[in-house]
Amino acid sequence: MSSSDVLIHLHQKAINLLREDANKIEKLIEVQMENLTTRKCPLYEEVLDTQIYGFSREIDFAVRAGLVSEAAGKEMISKLERNLAQLYEALGN
Amino acid sequence: MSSSDVLIHLHQKAINLLREDANKIEKLIEVQMENLTTRKCPLYEEVLDTQIYGFSREIDFAVRAGLVSEAAGKEMISKLERNLAQLYEALGN
Repeated sequence: MSSSDVLIHLHQKAINLLREDANKIEKLIEVQMENLTTRKCPLYEEVLDTQIYGFSREIDFAVRAGLVSEAAGKEMISKLERNLAQLYEALGN
Repeated sequence: MSSSDVLIHLHQKAINLLREDANKIEKLIEVQMENLTTRKCPLYEEVLDTQIYGFSREIDFAVRAGLVSEAAGKEMISKLERNLAQLYEALGN
């Protein structure tokens, strides 16, 4: 593989890993939301905040390591936040 | 640069970024510990846990992306935990 092939491979791998993680967080939150009794619980808010924080640390690292562009990183966090907000809306009504 | 040069460069960059982050966490915790009134505060424990969690997410991502070996990743987390424990000991006496 040429050096640019290696970089393209690494960038793609990084994006795939981050997407997987975002999906895992959405699934985790969805399962928690389905349990209505926990939805208004402060502990649940904390789980949500911690997950988003952990994901933002991963993104930040990937951007600094040059694996993901800053714009792509921001977009992935915004997308996760939007999806979680939609999930909350959908289950809250 | 050859493809192996690119990889070596990326691995070294990843290690340097993670070391910087571990140092930042140590500094943050040190500053907080110097403020004796907060040391026994539950909020302080939470800051510590959150920082270590964020760092472990970064390490986990770096390992999965193939930038850092699993052994090196574990060693970096252990080292941070050891340093923070020593800091706590040193200031606690």
